[in-house]
Amino acid sequence: MPRLAYLGPEGTFTEEALRLLDPTAERLPCATVSAALNAARAGDADGAVVPLENSIEGAITTTLDEFAWGEPLLITAELLLPVQFSLLAPPGTEIPHIKRVYTHPAAITQTRAFLARELPDAVVVAAPSTAAAAQEVSLPGSPYDAAIAARIAGEHYGLVQLATEIGDRSDTVTRFVRVARPGALPEPTGSDRTSLVVFLADDHPGALLEMLTEFSVRGVNLTRIESRPTGGGIGRYFFHFDFEGHVADARVGEAIAGLHRICGEVRFLGSYPRADGLAPQIKPGTSDSEFTEAGDWLARVRAGKV
Amino acid sequence: MPRLAYLGPEGTFTEEALRLLDPTAERLPCATVSAALNAARAGDADGAVVPLENSIEGAITTTLDEFAWGEPLLITAELLLPVQFSLLAPPGTEIPHIKRVYTHPAAITQTRAFLARELPDAVVVAAPSTAAAAQEVSLPGSPYDAAIAARIAGEHYGLVQLATEIGDRSDTVTRFVRVARPGALPEPTGSDRTSLVVFLADDHPGALLEMLTEFSVRGVNLTRIESRPTGGGIGRYFFHFDFEGHVADARVGEAIAGLHRICGEVRFLGSYPRADGLAPQIKPGTSDSEFTEAGDWLARVRAGKV
Repeated sequence: MPRLAYLGPEGTFTEEALRLLDPTAERLPCATVSAALNAARAGDADGAVVPLENSIEGAITTTLDEFAWGEPLLITAELLLPVQFSLLAPPGTEIPHIKRVYTHPAAITQTRAFLARELPDAVVVAAPSTAAAAQEVSLPGSPYDAAIAARIAGEHYGLVQLATEIGDRSDTVTRFVRVARPGALPEPTGSDRTSLVVFLADDHPGALLEMLTEFSVRGVNLTRIESRPTGGGIGRYFFHFDFEGHVADARVGEAIAGLHRICGEVRFLGSYPRADGLAPQIKPGTSDSEFTEAGDWLARVRAGKV
Repeated sequence: MPRLAYLGPEGTFTEEALRLLDPTAERLPCATVSAALNAARAGDADGAVVPLENSIEGAITTTLDEFAWGEPLLITAELLLPVQFSLLAPPGTEIPHIKRVYTHPAAITQTRAFLARELPDAVVVAAPSTAAAAQEVSLPGSPYDAAIAARIAGEHYGLVQLATEIGDRSDTVTRFVRVARPGALPEPTGSDRTSLVVFLADDHPGALLEMLTEFSVRGVNLTRIESRPTGGGIGRYFFHFDFEGHVADARVGEAIAGLHRICGEVRFLGSYPRADGLAPQIKPGTSDSEFTEAGDWLARVRAGKV
């Protein structure tokens, strides 16, 4: 039974993701993404589950920066979790009596329409996490009347759902990843994703296009790109790339070896099954068998057998 | 002592090129480029020397088409020969008496200024080759008074030079290649050129850009590109590429294997020392040692050692 660290407290969306990724795992809640990843690095846990991006807010920058700068970890799985917000309060609370609402800023952003319609006069206060908000609201004497959080947080902290699915959009999804200390990679499944961080050796006009060309020329389809400042001055960036395929695929291997040649540093973050189960569109000429055949052809040409 | 077929008759620029490429070779003059190449293919000669391109007129299309469609041959050497035209005539001829000049149409094009200045009233007639023109002029009872040809043609056919270096431009150069039946390639020298023919599988917008990207992404610098109709209808082309480097170079091998994957057919024409002795500019990240290092890195990544 693996022990998995995650972004706590109990009742976070991350806990929900962890339970879906591994229902049998022992759960180790941590106060921050960094703490969860450090638990995995230090061996206090066998791995960790952390949020990587949100379909409304984009990348979770703490996680990206940890992957880029922290001690290396490998992503071994991902999960797409629909984010369903609920209005949670102690039993007996009624909506008209709610004066103060507590929740994470991301949840405030994503429930604006509900708040304006149902709680126009309530004060909404920012919490460290949605689960922390639910925990706070559950305490006797809390200054807050209700929390906006995951349904699971209500169960954890003895709150009831006064309203469900209160997000402005019904298709909000958060992407979570499971990580482990470096070791054997998950086997290719035919529906895989690979993640990388790239640091430029020297920034110059066309540098991003050169990187993208390494992918496109081998028919590797990007699924996400994100630039982040290095901290080395305005305009100095590093890049996160997610793309279709497994590093064991010939086209992926050649593409990232190409990036490795032309960039300052390429940090491999993992190849793992895609949560959406989609198989990549393989561009003509870029399948493994075509790479093998081209390698055989090149060997013949080099031997002068034309 | 190798026996080399060449574009004759004796006294052509091609003979001059052959003598420079291999002073000791036995020479087999042939009536056409195709005949010279066929002599090499059939084993009647050990190889052949033919013109490939001219700095004023561009590609010699017969040679390109032979390389593309004929039985495969490998280019093993190249030579850049300055083309110096002379006005040749039987001994005793004086310029004012010349009424009819015989020469190859390319020579007519390249000596317009001289002809207009020195022989404004002479009729200039097209010959099959400059050497054939010299041969004809040397015959008793020839209707022609003079030929424009290489100095060497005058020596062969007993003509004297009435004027030398009569070309409009002093920097006209013809590129000749030596070819052999397929076999071991010339060793890399650090200053090599590689030639290819590419046939498209399906023509589509961006097809040429895709081919060029296979070169540029590996830092392979093209030195010549030529499109030629396939004969399969208007707008159907195949392509000749010359580029820096030897097929034994990692960057060249990966580039042409990439072309092989995405194109209908790639015909390798050879890797051989450059006549100009120039070494390629190696773009950062594309040297053999960087390819080797990137391959080692990829192997570690695939093993999960990050």
